[in-house]
Amino acid sequence: MNWIYEPIAAPAADYYLQAQQRQQQLTKPPGSLGVLEDCAARLAAMQRRAAPSIDRIHISVFAADHGVAAEGVSAFPQAVTAEMVKNFAAGGAAVNVLARQIGADFEVVDTGLLQPVALPNVIADRAGAGTANFVDSPAMTAAQLEFALAAGRRALTRALNNRAQLFVGGEMGIANTTSASALAAACLGLPAAEITGAGTGLLPEQIDRKAALIEAALQRHRPLLDTPLAILQTLGGFEIAALTGAYIAAAQQGLPVLVDGFISSVAALLAAQLNSNCSAWFFFGHCSAEKGHARVLQALQARPLLTMDMRLGEGSGAALAVPILRMACRLHNEMATFAEAGVSAG
Amino acid sequence: MNWIYEPIAAPAADYYLQAQQRQQQLTKPPGSLGVLEDCAARLAAMQRRAAPSIDRIHISVFAADHGVAAEGVSAFPQAVTAEMVKNFAAGGAAVNVLARQIGADFEVVDTGLLQPVALPNVIADRAGAGTANFVDSPAMTAAQLEFALAAGRRALTRALNNRAQLFVGGEMGIANTTSASALAAACLGLPAAEITGAGTGLLPEQIDRKAALIEAALQRHRPLLDTPLAILQTLGGFEIAALTGAYIAAAQQGLPVLVDGFISSVAALLAAQLNSNCSAWFFFGHCSAEKGHARVLQALQARPLLTMDMRLGEGSGAALAVPILRMACRLHNEMATFAEAGVSAG
Repeated sequence: MNWIYEPIAAPAADYYLQAQQRQQQLTKPPGSLGVLEDCAARLAAMQRRAAPSIDRIHISVFAADHGVAAEGVSAFPQAVTAEMVKNFAAGGAAVNVLARQIGADFEVVDTGLLQPVALPNVIADRAGAGTANFVDSPAMTAAQLEFALAAGRRALTRALNNRAQLFVGGEMGIANTTSASALAAACLGLPAAEITGAGTGLLPEQIDRKAALIEAALQRHRPLLDTPLAILQTLGGFEIAALTGAYIAAAQQGLPVLVDGFISSVAALLAAQLNSNCSAWFFFGHCSAEKGHARVLQALQARPLLTMDMRLGEGSGAALAVPILRMACRLHNEMATFAEAGVSAG
Repeated sequence: MNWIYEPIAAPAADYYLQAQQRQQQLTKPPGSLGVLEDCAARLAAMQRRAAPSIDRIHISVFAADHGVAAEGVSAFPQAVTAEMVKNFAAGGAAVNVLARQIGADFEVVDTGLLQPVALPNVIADRAGAGTANFVDSPAMTAAQLEFALAAGRRALTRALNNRAQLFVGGEMGIANTTSASALAAACLGLPAAEITGAGTGLLPEQIDRKAALIEAALQRHRPLLDTPLAILQTLGGFEIAALTGAYIAAAQQGLPVLVDGFISSVAALLAAQLNSNCSAWFFFGHCSAEKGHARVLQALQARPLLTMDMRLGEGSGAALAVPILRMACRLHNEMATFAEAGVSAG
């Protein structure tokens, strides 16, 4: 699993500065395109191009089942994980609609459903038949963790083979906000109650119970939780480990990443804790309505592009933000300069 | 000018309810698409269609000069108004780039530059050769106000003739944040200092001076400022009056409006004060970095779609938000229901 520590190059500072200088010359008050200016300059630095663009996008949705679902921590039955995988394969889920709208390549990867789904357009790359219930025992073995991280890297290789210019990861797994909340609390050293939220729609008393379960697991496993990898193995999900591996591999390969919601952001936090140079390659699509997301984004010093009160996952919030990045590129590339347009600078 | 008080029908409540019911049946936790769900339902109600869509968009940018520019309240010289009109006509401004990206019809309307611009694709619909300096005297005559409001309605008629499904208004006019700040302070009964901001890039001491100028004008004209129309005539700009007229006409014709930034939102506030049923037809594209915008949005009980620290105007923030509305429609129309996909509901 040593590949996750292999070095990550920084985006090209000279392209960043050159892009910032161009932004000063475009026919607008300096700074008036707000965060779009920095998005364009960061993409120029990542792509080492004066004129950045995001034509080809690869979306990988990783799905897996969670042993902790047995604790009744979700508003939906565990069967929904596999049912939604079939929905992804049939093109009926939210992320499918958004992928079509933005013209993205889309794939769904079974990283560990309870039972495999026999559909030709579901990629089987299974670390196991669901995780163990982390209330009782570590969620996965070291071998399963290694496999799931590598499954993320394999998805990233497919993205590069498709000549993607942006990687979007998504996830599906009933009970995975429970896993992600536990991971975030452990990574940030916070009480579970400060991170735990409604997931797919729990009532307040159910959220309290979910937080108490997570807190008990954190106490029980405390001696194990001494590194990011150990935290991920003990409390994680296969799809979260796959996202973590995909994000690290993307940064190593110099491919920009657009992070989705709470669960994806927890994977981004783990990636950054494992290999700190990752973060320079991340954009954050949105801040979701899930309670812990704002806190995780804060830890990542991230400013999300959108705040829509969404709480769906699947990569949907990231896909929704893709047009913002595309427009940032086009504004950067196509606007006239003061000199070209004969407009007086201020 | 009586047309501005003609009745405005409410969007169709039955289509709104039907759309909300469909949102509950789509394969996602109820409410998990956040504000997108309400956007889709509102558009369904406005279009009286189960499957709303925004294929055709009309962008009108209204430009005019302001007498108050003589007070040195802008970081840019007054000549930039006409120079930017030429830039709009040549396709080099930010809003042009965004209009191309979203496939919108685009027009620029001279509603009162100091001197006409002789270009074939600039629509001349001039209420005058710039407003008077409202520090000294009312900005426009009653006849000029009537003309400028009607210029907005004429733009809206062109939008309808182009079969537009969404109207986006933009503005250009050096010193027009000074006019808009004065209008907002008068409409909301606030001190100028609470509304006045940096515009195209003033320094803090320049902002203080701008606010003091506005406050002095509010005091001088106090006896005149007793109705929204009188406020608009005394402190307004031709392009702001045109936006106001366009918004009222859009609501009267049942055409959804996507409002842009601070100046456009002040026009929306005036429209709502003149004919209160307008607001039901408004979406708000973004909250800008201009100081007064959040306060004006609050008065309109508006939740903007984006917050990007933009402060450019031209319709740019609204154009940037168009993909959000389009994606809200497609999600509503194309996602599978629980029954269609065989997914268990919670």
